[in-house]
Amino acid sequence: MLKKSTAAFLMIAALLCGSLLTLSVTGYMQISGQAAGQGAISSALNGSSGLDQKEAKKLGTALGLIEGNYYETVDRNKLIDGAVNGMMEALGDPYSNYMGKETAEKFEESIEGSFSGIGAEVSSENGKVVVVSPIKGSPAEKAGIQAKDVILSVNGESLEGLELNAAVAKIRGPKGSKATLKIQRAGSAEPLEFAITRDDVKLETVYARLEKGDVGVIEVTQFSMNTAERFKEELDRLEKQGMKGLVIDVRNDPGGVLPVVIQMAEQFVPSGKTIVQVEDKNKNRELSKSKGSSKAYPVVVLMNKGSASASEILAGALQQSAGAKLIGDNSFGKGTVQTSFDKQLGDGSLLKITIAKWLTPDGTWIHGKGIKPDIAVAQPDYFSVAPINKSATLQYNMNSADVKSAQIMLDGLGYKPGRKDGYFDAATKEAVKKFQSTAKLTVTGIIDAKTAETLEAALIKAIQNPANDNQRNKGIEEIQKEIKSASSNK
Amino acid sequence: MLKKSTAAFLMIAALLCGSLLTLSVTGYMQISGQAAGQGAISSALNGSSGLDQKEAKKLGTALGLIEGNYYETVDRNKLIDGAVNGMMEALGDPYSNYMGKETAEKFEESIEGSFSGIGAEVSSENGKVVVVSPIKGSPAEKAGIQAKDVILSVNGESLEGLELNAAVAKIRGPKGSKATLKIQRAGSAEPLEFAITRDDVKLETVYARLEKGDVGVIEVTQFSMNTAERFKEELDRLEKQGMKGLVIDVRNDPGGVLPVVIQMAEQFVPSGKTIVQVEDKNKNRELSKSKGSSKAYPVVVLMNKGSASASEILAGALQQSAGAKLIGDNSFGKGTVQTSFDKQLGDGSLLKITIAKWLTPDGTWIHGKGIKPDIAVAQPDYFSVAPINKSATLQYNMNSADVKSAQIMLDGLGYKPGRKDGYFDAATKEAVKKFQSTAKLTVTGIIDAKTAETLEAALIKAIQNPANDNQRNKGIEEIQKEIKSASSNK
Repeated sequence: MLKKSTAAFLMIAALLCGSLLTLSVTGYMQISGQAAGQGAISSALNGSSGLDQKEAKKLGTALGLIEGNYYETVDRNKLIDGAVNGMMEALGDPYSNYMGKETAEKFEESIEGSFSGIGAEVSSENGKVVVVSPIKGSPAEKAGIQAKDVILSVNGESLEGLELNAAVAKIRGPKGSKATLKIQRAGSAEPLEFAITRDDVKLETVYARLEKGDVGVIEVTQFSMNTAERFKEELDRLEKQGMKGLVIDVRNDPGGVLPVVIQMAEQFVPSGKTIVQVEDKNKNRELSKSKGSSKAYPVVVLMNKGSASASEILAGALQQSAGAKLIGDNSFGKGTVQTSFDKQLGDGSLLKITIAKWLTPDGTWIHGKGIKPDIAVAQPDYFSVAPINKSATLQYNMNSADVKSAQIMLDGLGYKPGRKDGYFDAATKEAVKKFQSTAKLTVTGIIDAKTAETLEAALIKAIQNPANDNQRNKGIEEIQKEIKSASSNK
Repeated sequence: MLKKSTAAFLMIAALLCGSLLTLSVTGYMQISGQAAGQGAISSALNGSSGLDQKEAKKLGTALGLIEGNYYETVDRNKLIDGAVNGMMEALGDPYSNYMGKETAEKFEESIEGSFSGIGAEVSSENGKVVVVSPIKGSPAEKAGIQAKDVILSVNGESLEGLELNAAVAKIRGPKGSKATLKIQRAGSAEPLEFAITRDDVKLETVYARLEKGDVGVIEVTQFSMNTAERFKEELDRLEKQGMKGLVIDVRNDPGGVLPVVIQMAEQFVPSGKTIVQVEDKNKNRELSKSKGSSKAYPVVVLMNKGSASASEILAGALQQSAGAKLIGDNSFGKGTVQTSFDKQLGDGSLLKITIAKWLTPDGTWIHGKGIKPDIAVAQPDYFSVAPINKSATLQYNMNSADVKSAQIMLDGLGYKPGRKDGYFDAATKEAVKKFQSTAKLTVTGIIDAKTAETLEAALIKAIQNPANDNQRNKGIEEIQKEIKSASSNK
């Protein structure tokens, strides 16, 4: 997708997408007073029973045969890690994984919602590491790092030519360590230098904003340990500002921690009504019932196919127990609960194991199916168009995937390319000419590299314009309608 | 590919493609008098060293945590198999595999080149199981099963609606067991019944034929234990018939047993010249030198991207040590030797482990690169065209992958569709009309299901016609040229 190339990456987020798709109860027992679901889950946490003699012999024989005979040098630790991986894979469950020490650390940071570093969201733009924004209260913000700053080097090591993940690895470091950043800033002729002491930084997972008509929009990017608290803060703030209705946006939110989403749902689900059901391997069900109360204002939830796990618990609870409408696309469909065993293996590695199913308040298991929106709204097709390969020139009578991309872009920008199936016909040529004229390019009707780049830049602007976010617009519109209908009923 | 839907499947072959891509030395030590390469290989076969305490504890803990906590019932044996699988995967070598008992049996049958059953090649045609040909000397042939017989049921169990693999599983069985087949044969009003006693059947891996101009063509489909012997028989037969030159066809031959291909190469490589080099993990090289002699007639080898492993050893040896030209596409590129350990695990499962590299006579490791043909010849593009989805009707101004398929087919059959990129233009419409007229269909210029089916049937005929096999034709042509040039040099 085009959007990704300029989208912001959290310093930690880039590495986490795979492992984060989880619904964790890791920190579960540590939350005092958080009783919901504990019975069904804690009863399931059983210990080790070890290998019997026959099993140990088979594994030992295999290990020995490999080490003794393989044509290249073998790392025994890798074989043992491979064996644990293989056991997990034998379960056929994509959410049960073994993580080596490094992956385990990053996973736990994401669950905690904090990491140690300087605290800046960065993205990669034309091969440069650009600050999207410093995280509130972070060392980067305190030192004066600003949005659009280009990070040239860290402690004398240039970031030039590095992949974003590799650059982020250089910027991050343990609490208390120093990072000296060389920064290029618009308006400064010489690079600036900042000496920053790294610290624990809380990941921002909640973004709130009051739109016109007093409609609040809260975006939740994942359900980390501190997300419920941050959500409550933002909710209180919007309510104090006179919010009359709320859009909760969990699009592309892969999930997180179970008690956190339960706490969040309690803000909206009336006392005594079910938020989620958890079913253990013996089919025992335990219902998490709300101790909260409902809101006087209307609420809708925006979701899409990237809304998984905890996002789906929130959507299901708010739909079935708080009367909220769900808007957008069908959700991802992950109906299981994992816990991670991070001490037992004794070497920093951990096992994340699926220990239960979760069901919506009415007892539906949405695994593999997802939740259907009450109001289905698709994003425009140009939100997910593939970029144009710039090495070829596209012109009349050609037929290719690149032509198709260009047609979708032209169409999205309001030029009429006639068709969007990849065949470059006369109408497409006319549309290209019109675009070139508007963009002050030489009017040829041919898509060369320059035209393609200009077209893509215009498209990215269109994608980033909230006015084009169909789902968000529909959410706000629906809330406005409900506010109106509630006030006319008074 | 279209061809596959009607191509013949050997009763055993269908299940084996994945595991067969090997270069085995399993039966190696059993071939007496076969000394080549033995030193480098036998020295590598080392025993088991077992798990140390820490390793056993980690694996046991993981097993216990999974068994104790996973949300579904867990089969301990599957976890142990998974662990062995995982160790093999950790090597990152696609040719080192763990095989459970059933897969191991099939693998060994394929290496042996024999299996127990009735011995008939069958294919699936319109959901029916059709005999392509009974294997020479097999129980099926002795009982009178003929090509084109449709097998309706086995021991009273209908084969209707079964996938080919499932049907084959019902037809096969242990030596000595009885299979009563109900057969539908053209010309018989009532189904016929055949009672057949299953027996060991030798897989046919060598197909020979003398073409005009006394050019022999020997196709080798895999290098099983009996392939060298069968190859020698067919070679002798062709030589007695006055063969003046030979085309060896190893296209789509995934490989097989190392000593077998060495024996075969010895038929052509002069005494003392190298056939293949084997390099063990300590970089010790051992050269297999020919004890055979060269042929007085010219030889070429046909290969394609499906020619792997033993096929590549043969191609490399004949090119570098016997002056044979290689014709076709670049070969697959598998330059390693595996052996299987089938006793050590003690439960019928086996480990196939890569124990060495092999190099061509001049010391090149072709792994991942393949061997370049001396004369590159591509097959026509319609040999690999995708079938047309019959649910949609294709017509003027449409643009789709199905239109593209239809255009490639029309072009292959000599109609001129104007373009082959999926855009249905006026020339394509004309070509469809011409085809419909020739095929005595209603002439509409529109591709409906009937036209698509007729088009595909015509294409399959074209693919099966040896006259269209560019690579084979080039091979025969090259041999004819070399025969001519040799005789003019006399």
